[in-house]
Amino acid sequence: MPDNRFFQADGPFSLGDLAGRVGAELSDPARAGQMVQGIADLELAGANELALFSDARHAAAFANSHAGVIVTNAKLAALSPKDGALLLCDDPRLAFAQIGLFFYPRRAPTPFVHSSAVIAASAKIGAGAAIAAGVVISENVVIGARARIGANSVIGDGVVIGDDLVMGTSNSISHALIGHRVSIANNCSIGGEGFGFVPGPKGLVRLSQIGRVIIEDQVDIGSNCAIDRGGLTDTVIGAMTAIDNLVQIGHNVRIGKGCVFAGQSGVAGSVTIGDFVQVGGAVSISDHLTIGTKARIAGKSGVARDVAAGETVAGYPAVPVRQWHRQNNALNKLIVRFTDKE
Amino acid sequence: MPDNRFFQADGPFSLGDLAGRVGAELSDPARAGQMVQGIADLELAGANELALFSDARHAAAFANSHAGVIVTNAKLAALSPKDGALLLCDDPRLAFAQIGLFFYPRRAPTPFVHSSAVIAASAKIGAGAAIAAGVVISENVVIGARARIGANSVIGDGVVIGDDLVMGTSNSISHALIGHRVSIANNCSIGGEGFGFVPGPKGLVRLSQIGRVIIEDQVDIGSNCAIDRGGLTDTVIGAMTAIDNLVQIGHNVRIGKGCVFAGQSGVAGSVTIGDFVQVGGAVSISDHLTIGTKARIAGKSGVARDVAAGETVAGYPAVPVRQWHRQNNALNKLIVRFTDKE
Amino acid sequence: MPDNRFFQADGPFSLGDLAGRVGAELSDPARAGQMVQGIADLELAGANELALFSDARHAAAFANSHAGVIVTNAKLAALSPKDGALLLCDDPRLAFAQIGLFFYPRRAPTPFVHSSAVIAASAKIGAGAAIAAGVVISENVVIGARARIGANSVIGDGVVIGDDLVMGTSNSISHALIGHRVSIANNCSIGGEGFGFVPGPKGLVRLSQIGRVIIEDQVDIGSNCAIDRGGLTDTVIGAMTAIDNLVQIGHNVRIGKGCVFAGQSGVAGSVTIGDFVQVGGAVSISDHLTIGTKARIAGKSGVARDVAAGETVAGYPAVPVRQWHRQNNALNKLIVRFTDKE
Repeated sequence: MPDNRFFQADGPFSLGDLAGRVGAELSDPARAGQMVQGIADLELAGANELALFSDARHAAAFANSHAGVIVTNAKLAALSPKDGALLLCDDPRLAFAQIGLFFYPRRAPTPFVHSSAVIAASAKIGAGAAIAAGVVISENVVIGARARIGANSVIGDGVVIGDDLVMGTSNSISHALIGHRVSIANNCSIGGEGFGFVPGPKGLVRLSQIGRVIIEDQVDIGSNCAIDRGGLTDTVIGAMTAIDNLVQIGHNVRIGKGCVFAGQSGVAGSVTIGDFVQVGGAVSISDHLTIGTKARIAGKSGVARDVAAGETVAGYPAVPVRQWHRQNNALNKLIVRFTDKE
Repeated sequence: MPDNRFFQADGPFSLGDLAGRVGAELSDPARAGQMVQGIADLELAGANELALFSDARHAAAFANSHAGVIVTNAKLAALSPKDGALLLCDDPRLAFAQIGLFFYPRRAPTPFVHSSAVIAASAKIGAGAAIAAGVVISENVVIGARARIGANSVIGDGVVIGDDLVMGTSNSISHALIGHRVSIANNCSIGGEGFGFVPGPKGLVRLSQIGRVIIEDQVDIGSNCAIDRGGLTDTVIGAMTAIDNLVQIGHNVRIGKGCVFAGQSGVAGSVTIGDFVQVGGAVSISDHLTIGTKARIAGKSGVARDVAAGETVAGYPAVPVRQWHRQNNALNKLIVRFTDKE
Repeated sequence: MPDNRFFQADGPFSLGDLAGRVGAELSDPARAGQMVQGIADLELAGANELALFSDARHAAAFANSHAGVIVTNAKLAALSPKDGALLLCDDPRLAFAQIGLFFYPRRAPTPFVHSSAVIAASAKIGAGAAIAAGVVISENVVIGARARIGANSVIGDGVVIGDDLVMGTSNSISHALIGHRVSIANNCSIGGEGFGFVPGPKGLVRLSQIGRVIIEDQVDIGSNCAIDRGGLTDTVIGAMTAIDNLVQIGHNVRIGKGCVFAGQSGVAGSVTIGDFVQVGGAVSISDHLTIGTKARIAGKSGVARDVAAGETVAGYPAVPVRQWHRQNNALNKLIVRFTDKE
């Protein structure tokens, strides 16, 4: 069971109820009334818990699991016959994620404003917000209903945020318009000055950075990220995009909907990124490039040219992923030849 | 126009005034009295705004622009004759940056100390400072005139800072001597212990880190950076150096004047860097190296040897940039040959 | 001498005392009573200070040093005969580190709770803690004796921390069980939600992240790091592991004892790392890999396959380090041939 110092599950739910809600079939309909109290790892789950089996490499764990019920698909279930209860569906990972959210839904906070929070008289905060200790909310800020703002986060003048914000601690937010159901973890800097300078006779001269950061609905941002505001236009993060920790988004970057940025990736200024683009960990994208819809960029790549819609690239400089594999193979053949001859 | 929730421009200024101040020539002297209210992107600028045309690739935008006046040079202006007002000069990007700072100058703050700031009795703060909520200023700190310190930033014992500091929110500053007109954005850690350990029989033994961070005048530091203090000597950031977000500067690093570090770059311990060095995004520089004056390091490079003054390097491991291009070309020819034969 | 605004040394100590405590031999036993007031760099040390000479490349500095006493070994001492006092031992770097800690020991703090700290009534804090301004300690937190918690750090509900914690400013800690003698610098995010999503028909569906972060004894964590809690299991950092700045540790990662992670390195989700592994700066390790005990990973490498115990790898994708050198050599020979022919 998860550590109850940190997590309290809703439920329990019956197998019949869960099967119905995610559109799964129960392997043994007689068990529809069996109750489940939570989700767990396949190897650790107990008789009251539900686990996931979605990868044939874990067939041994499946065979040995003590889980009360296991979500899987018909093909995997056949690998290792089992008399325990199964929830069968086409996309067991999705069903498992959905069931996880039944047990651990995004709850509206208990409304609350800590006495040490500093909230400008001109700020408007919607009903049901929870504002923790040390939070600073500046002039003319507008925040929607049910916001959850963690301790010591700072919201700068004029920022607008929609409903159901979930924000962690010690964030720095300024010059931003933020949609509904957005999550921002901890120690993020959003809306800082972009990195724009022109060389002058006495050193660098700053280009005024008078754009904003626009964050659309349901964007999820990890910890310790830096997202700069635009220079003359805006920096835009499209709806439902997910950003991991320590990610850098430069000024004027425009990101489409449903993109994924893994940890420590970075996008230099004025890049345009389509919808549903997947960016691996520690990827770097040079400035002013265009990355097409559904492009995929392998972890650690250095992208120095445009990437077409649907293309998958890898390497430094990034090339089509097959070409990258051929480069690596060729190099390893080459060292054998050189060693043979010399 | 920029969003007035976030930006208020000075001005308006007449074309004649702007031309005189930046040493530009007005294409139509009869328009010297025309007023400009702000700067804007070439494609979005309106009749009251000034825009920049400095790249021939944007000639169509130039031809179609509704900007009241456009800063450019004579050669570009000839590309696409236009009857609107032009400001002609040799370096239009520099003039545009300078004009931007007329509209959006670095203003001295309205003096102010928030009641929740915690300021040690022994700290000395110059006239005209603005100290926001939750700021902590510790014993024996000395800060110059007109400092602007954002909410929840923490200045540790003994830190000395010059005049005209612009500091954002939630910064952690310790063991540092900082010059005049320095900017530090948000969530930075400056002066932390360097990463120095010696293996011992019972595990790692820490090397005492008893140096400082010296930040010279007019240094500009982005968000979420980490700059460690020296071990036995100091970490030094030279005057007018600009550092982007999420940059790591290790202990004992010495950086010269006017250098530029793009986002997510990192410098390991005890590196010496000359003046006017340009470091691309996500570059990594190994410890104890020397990087000469005016060297340039392409984005994402991994530098594992010294770089000579004026040299441009790229790659991992970094080599002269022409060699890197030849490596990449050779590799792509090689895969064709191997594929042809095998 | 170190800047006394920031550092106060214990001592002085006699040469005889120091020699005895680190098991070194004094080159001139007659000087056993000579007093030392601190440690310093070999080139800068004065007559009251102790310096280190451990690298033959610094023989000139050794010959010219004004240090009162120099720690070295017999072989290096012979390089450049000197009549000043020497402390001779097998591992001079270790002795120097140990002596540094005599002068600058990890001191227990002066007990203290700032009036602006917000501490839940249900939290339990051991004797002798120093809790700075703006710290937030939430419900049911348990912290051991002599904790030092820097300003504006936030400890979330239920977190348990052992004795002798040294924590800097503006950290965000949640969902974590932390051992004794742990150091955490500044602006870290520990215990945030892992980056786990499943694609669904309406966008990404979050996988509930109901694990913890377990940090064992004597772990040392730098500034601006992000360590996510586990998804269904825990993220574990083994005892005596040292982590530099801006490091990302993904969910479910299990790190052994005594590992070292240099700055800006990153470990994706569900990686298992053995004991005493050394990870260079800016290294990226892909998800679900296994890195064996005492493996070493060169700076900037991109690790995309398992690494065996004791193996040293480098490159992107990472290969055995000798192979990487051969790849680089082969590539440089190849460009010469192609240039000769074409």
